[in-house]
Amino acid sequence: MSQTTAARADGRKPDQLRPITLVPGIAPHATGSVLIGFGDTRVICAATIEPNVPTWMKQQGVKGGWLTAEYSMLPYSTLDRKPRDIAKGRIDGRTVEIQRLIGRSLRAVVDLQKLGQNTLWIDCDVLQADGGTRTASITGAYLAARLAVQKLIDEKKLAENPITDSIAAISVGILESRELLDLAYVEDKDAEVDFNVVMTGRGQFVEIQGTGEESTFSHDQLQSLLALAQKGLKQIAAEQTAFLTKQLLGTLKI
Amino acid sequence: MSQTTAARADGRKPDQLRPITLVPGIAPHATGSVLIGFGDTRVICAATIEPNVPTWMKQQGVKGGWLTAEYSMLPYSTLDRKPRDIAKGRIDGRTVEIQRLIGRSLRAVVDLQKLGQNTLWIDCDVLQADGGTRTASITGAYLAARLAVQKLIDEKKLAENPITDSIAAISVGILESRELLDLAYVEDKDAEVDFNVVMTGRGQFVEIQGTGEESTFSHDQLQSLLALAQKGLKQIAAEQTAFLTKQLLGTLKI
Amino acid sequence: MSQTTAARADGRKPDQLRPITLVPGIAPHATGSVLIGFGDTRVICAATIEPNVPTWMKQQGVKGGWLTAEYSMLPYSTLDRKPRDIAKGRIDGRTVEIQRLIGRSLRAVVDLQKLGQNTLWIDCDVLQADGGTRTASITGAYLAARLAVQKLIDEKKLAENPITDSIAAISVGILESRELLDLAYVEDKDAEVDFNVVMTGRGQFVEIQGTGEESTFSHDQLQSLLALAQKGLKQIAAEQTAFLTKQLLGTLKI
Amino acid sequence: MSQTTAARADGRKPDQLRPITLVPGIAPHATGSVLIGFGDTRVICAATIEPNVPTWMKQQGVKGGWLTAEYSMLPYSTLDRKPRDIAKGRIDGRTVEIQRLIGRSLRAVVDLQKLGQNTLWIDCDVLQADGGTRTASITGAYLAARLAVQKLIDEKKLAENPITDSIAAISVGILESRELLDLAYVEDKDAEVDFNVVMTGRGQFVEIQGTGEESTFSHDQLQSLLALAQKGLKQIAAEQTAFLTKQLLGTLKI
Amino acid sequence: MSQTTAARADGRKPDQLRPITLVPGIAPHATGSVLIGFGDTRVICAATIEPNVPTWMKQQGVKGGWLTAEYSMLPYSTLDRKPRDIAKGRIDGRTVEIQRLIGRSLRAVVDLQKLGQNTLWIDCDVLQADGGTRTASITGAYLAARLAVQKLIDEKKLAENPITDSIAAISVGILESRELLDLAYVEDKDAEVDFNVVMTGRGQFVEIQGTGEESTFSHDQLQSLLALAQKGLKQIAAEQTAFLTKQLLGTLKI
Amino acid sequence: MSQTTAARADGRKPDQLRPITLVPGIAPHATGSVLIGFGDTRVICAATIEPNVPTWMKQQGVKGGWLTAEYSMLPYSTLDRKPRDIAKGRIDGRTVEIQRLIGRSLRAVVDLQKLGQNTLWIDCDVLQADGGTRTASITGAYLAARLAVQKLIDEKKLAENPITDSIAAISVGILESRELLDLAYVEDKDAEVDFNVVMTGRGQFVEIQGTGEESTFSHDQLQSLLALAQKGLKQIAAEQTAFLTKQLLGTLKI
Repeated sequence: MSQTTAARADGRKPDQLRPITLVPGIAPHATGSVLIGFGDTRVICAATIEPNVPTWMKQQGVKGGWLTAEYSMLPYSTLDRKPRDIAKGRIDGRTVEIQRLIGRSLRAVVDLQKLGQNTLWIDCDVLQADGGTRTASITGAYLAARLAVQKLIDEKKLAENPITDSIAAISVGILESRELLDLAYVEDKDAEVDFNVVMTGRGQFVEIQGTGEESTFSHDQLQSLLALAQKGLKQIAAEQTAFLTKQLLGTLKI
Repeated sequence: MSQTTAARADGRKPDQLRPITLVPGIAPHATGSVLIGFGDTRVICAATIEPNVPTWMKQQGVKGGWLTAEYSMLPYSTLDRKPRDIAKGRIDGRTVEIQRLIGRSLRAVVDLQKLGQNTLWIDCDVLQADGGTRTASITGAYLAARLAVQKLIDEKKLAENPITDSIAAISVGILESRELLDLAYVEDKDAEVDFNVVMTGRGQFVEIQGTGEESTFSHDQLQSLLALAQKGLKQIAAEQTAFLTKQLLGTLKI
Repeated sequence: MSQTTAARADGRKPDQLRPITLVPGIAPHATGSVLIGFGDTRVICAATIEPNVPTWMKQQGVKGGWLTAEYSMLPYSTLDRKPRDIAKGRIDGRTVEIQRLIGRSLRAVVDLQKLGQNTLWIDCDVLQADGGTRTASITGAYLAARLAVQKLIDEKKLAENPITDSIAAISVGILESRELLDLAYVEDKDAEVDFNVVMTGRGQFVEIQGTGEESTFSHDQLQSLLALAQKGLKQIAAEQTAFLTKQLLGTLKI
Repeated sequence: MSQTTAARADGRKPDQLRPITLVPGIAPHATGSVLIGFGDTRVICAATIEPNVPTWMKQQGVKGGWLTAEYSMLPYSTLDRKPRDIAKGRIDGRTVEIQRLIGRSLRAVVDLQKLGQNTLWIDCDVLQADGGTRTASITGAYLAARLAVQKLIDEKKLAENPITDSIAAISVGILESRELLDLAYVEDKDAEVDFNVVMTGRGQFVEIQGTGEESTFSHDQLQSLLALAQKGLKQIAAEQTAFLTKQLLGTLKI
Repeated sequence: MSQTTAARADGRKPDQLRPITLVPGIAPHATGSVLIGFGDTRVICAATIEPNVPTWMKQQGVKGGWLTAEYSMLPYSTLDRKPRDIAKGRIDGRTVEIQRLIGRSLRAVVDLQKLGQNTLWIDCDVLQADGGTRTASITGAYLAARLAVQKLIDEKKLAENPITDSIAAISVGILESRELLDLAYVEDKDAEVDFNVVMTGRGQFVEIQGTGEESTFSHDQLQSLLALAQKGLKQIAAEQTAFLTKQLLGTLKI
Repeated sequence: MSQTTAARADGRKPDQLRPITLVPGIAPHATGSVLIGFGDTRVICAATIEPNVPTWMKQQGVKGGWLTAEYSMLPYSTLDRKPRDIAKGRIDGRTVEIQRLIGRSLRAVVDLQKLGQNTLWIDCDVLQADGGTRTASITGAYLAARLAVQKLIDEKKLAENPITDSIAAISVGILESRELLDLAYVEDKDAEVDFNVVMTGRGQFVEIQGTGEESTFSHDQLQSLLALAQKGLKQIAAEQTAFLTKQLLGTLKI
């Protein structure tokens, strides 16, 4: 791993995560919710059950339930106010990509058959953006979904837990030839290479998206970045387990 | 005032407000922000300065700045998930009415000339909806705007305070012939008459919207409802002052 | 009431209505229609019955019929041509507010149960705009609806009259400290306070919307404006009765 | 010409126009306006001058003015209420075709160079639809434009008349093998062949649109239909001249 | 026919068609397809069967099938790149007119009853535009439809051929007082008069659209242009027959 | 690599590409174009130069040119007709993702400074879809761009070649535990893991997108899939070079 000894802008070491904060119940009308923070990045993650499935599932006769995600940046989440999608009349391309990624990732650890004829909606609204909002969204969405599932089980609305594993995500990248874990915005905007890695608690990959816009990367750099991501994801999984253990007391079986 | 002695669903007396909660700094990237709660109703209010004015002002040669508001219900704010505006491709009529009301109300207490060539954006996003979201939005928006203005003054970006008075709003209504202050959702949905009253800290009216959908109301009922609203608004103004005094220490001149 | 003795721009006294004109049958394919004029303000009001109810009523199992309103300014109704909504691809906020107000007002005097499984569409298209188009729309819409109902009764399509009272609306406002009835455009655009009052023929309020954009108003001013509105509304109700009596001859029971 | 001796549904002979009615000044805020009727078909035609030209003309450096048309059916113009374009969010294909036809036709008799840097807007709103709304629109739009031009000349806003000839339009068609002039709706909806012919006062063609949906027509039928249209258009041109002579007194030079 | 002896820009005589090219099977997933060329104008024409009919047919209880057409210019079909409709969010007026014309024309030679409960979609995408794209689209769409029908008959999905005649279209116009057949773009853009004529193989007219934007035309010119179009259409019909005979071998009954 | 000895549906070996076909000049009005085929997948790739840059570049003062991509599936590219985006009024999420990927990939091998104040538009329209349309688009888009650049150089519109390397893309995936190169649609729709890999001619990665929807994958599988992709990409790069050498004769410097 090629790197200088200089500290990062916020004083972190190259392989150091930002502090993670987790506030449960931020949106009490959701079935489950959490406010997740990675440093200054803060995302409201909510999971809401709806007793219905999409029209295409009915038309195609697909059994079981569905899980879908929506992602949005609140207009005051950025330093310069970001206009709402509805003010422009359409969702921008970046938002579409992110909400599809969140939905796809969560579905990898949910047995849709066990959801019954229900849709589990995942909503991620960014309250403060400082890099890594999509990976924070996935990490927090898992927690909101797990809390929602437990509530449904407690209320006898679900017979068993449809979630098969935990899931989390993190960014890694190359900035000025240094490989960095969990990029803050000032790092991300200038990074030569940018990876988002989604992984389960058992260490299986769910999604890898690596891009070198206006740049490229070698096979060795790829290997090194993946190792860095895996290291960070192991720590995040531990924090997820600690949080859920506390929230769900003895009832949790993750 | 015609009323029974029975308590309301949440145990309040007819002329009793719900507990008000105020959390400053909920959205740190905004110029000023507050999370306001009236009982279970919780709204993120943010004020953001943008160094620009709308095109129509430039075209018409209007001097000074502008203030505009946007309002949205987050999808998990309601017990049944509410689809986002962007999913339907258009803002619904109720949202348009509310955001116009918020903007109009705030402009009544802001001297736009003193804003300079800036737009003050007011964003109100409902995190939990239990009735009175528009009045909570106005009440919280004033606080967010006041915090934003103080920050701009402290940073020498504004020469003087353009806010001329405090402003707050509350709902009153008639339910089963009883006149009630600050209606919760279960009361609001069945109310025969529904008023929203916006008033300044000095006791001047800014806006009165009273409607009796599928019903009507008499001149006497109107007088009685306005008196009830004024009583509640005096209490809210006191809570606003206490909050700002604490937040702004000795620097506040409201 | 504080006021100077000077005449208004069109020579009226402060408490004087503009001349009201009523032309029945302006749109013969509608079930009922009228061209209403308040001075130079002219609005085509049409009521059309449709043997169907909105989808949400069917889904929610709501019985009876529905009444809804649409409002539009024809492009040549203003001195500077006003682009059509469809040219911009969306309805502007002011239009949404007005058509919701018209619908809500009319529903206050219609017993929807007696409409059967029908929707009564109210369409108000402004042919010439000189202030007070929304209040002229409500006033004319009542007449169009009443004519439509009579036709449906005569054709045995309705068993009884679902309209429970007449309804009319008028604006009042404060301009240069004078309280004025029925504001023309030149008065309305500079008014410090602007009220729209909707009232039934029996003198019950249906809706009060009072706003002091970039201004405020006192409790005494509110009382004085409401009295002025009530005076005007009594005259308008008399003109409505005279018109319907002539149109419906002996068949009318208003 | 193959035809039976039986009368048409409204008693007309095959080569007989419906009665034409012309009401000037229907929309006083327009620069010129007329309410035109062909039997029960009634269209509001308005011409409004706007001191501006489209962006594409400026970008391409095209000199002179522009003329453009918009057409709309008011929702109560049809026996079954027709939803507004804006309610569906888009203009339907038929409307687009018609408003392009109206604009193209009028431009054939307007010298755009003589309009100056202005746009002449033509608006045609159908108040009552009984067949032939597009041809009535063209015929009335010419009159509205001519009145508008005269007003602009009288006000010294135009130096000379940019209109080079009168213009009118009519439909002809084949119904049950009979060739008919000026089809009413009951004839039009079942016609095997349907022609719209636009012609100048001097007898030159401007546009011919002939279609045999789900049918075809021969060369002989084409010739016969064109002769029938020309006969009707000669009468219409005479009525246009009589109307303008009366409206413009001695000032008219058509 | 008034004309000079000078050759046209591409060396053709006034009454000479451009070379026609026909490539079958350009889009193998369509039921039938052809790439048609008139000189440099090239259009992908595809016919696809869908086992369904539009909602309005079901609601109105209309029997049989349906045929509808869509037309689009690919962004690289013009010398200056033409933005896609979806980039602007709406179909432009010219596109709407053309796709309605294509659908109407094809329906004139298809017995919809014989289509069964199916929709035959006609798609015309312009690969290279050099004038006459709408007439090339109609001419090629017929061939794609005929190939599609034969495939459905061969696969026993249709009992008999619903196509009752061949159909083709061509443009004629007047440029610098010369009457020209099959206008290329450089001729079309400056033409004083522009006609599109649609005709069946048996010589019946299906549609005539003639316009003289910013110009007019006489009765004699009309006759002369129609004769020129008929001459060209006879040649095109012969080429269509030759193509289909080769493609369908002995199986074709056109 | 875990794999059975059974052949794939189309008889290929697991590490075998489908036959690649390349037709230059498919869209002559584009600056450069190619019809690329991977087996039955066929995509029209066109590159068009536009002498302008996006508004955001001008506003932000960014120097140089821009490259952007649009992707679309023609409605007849799929076995069941796929409705056009414009018919639904919006671009679907998958399309947005793909066109962003194409643009990002191409920009990695283009020195935007050398483009001057121009935008290079990349358009990819799928004529026939059988899996791998996005990777075929990238592979063909490079060729179209290279042909366009050469034309601009030959016409003296570009001083030097802004393309810094060749670029190509391929899919790899896991189906029934077998690792496969270049998945056809029947393989892709059931694959447990699906990777798209974009690589330059010099063997540097540009983008890796790997997903296991409703599944996950291990570190070993990831390594094995990347090796398989690299093998295929080496062959594709060779075919690209051969094609360009032939098209550009001695003028090519790739």
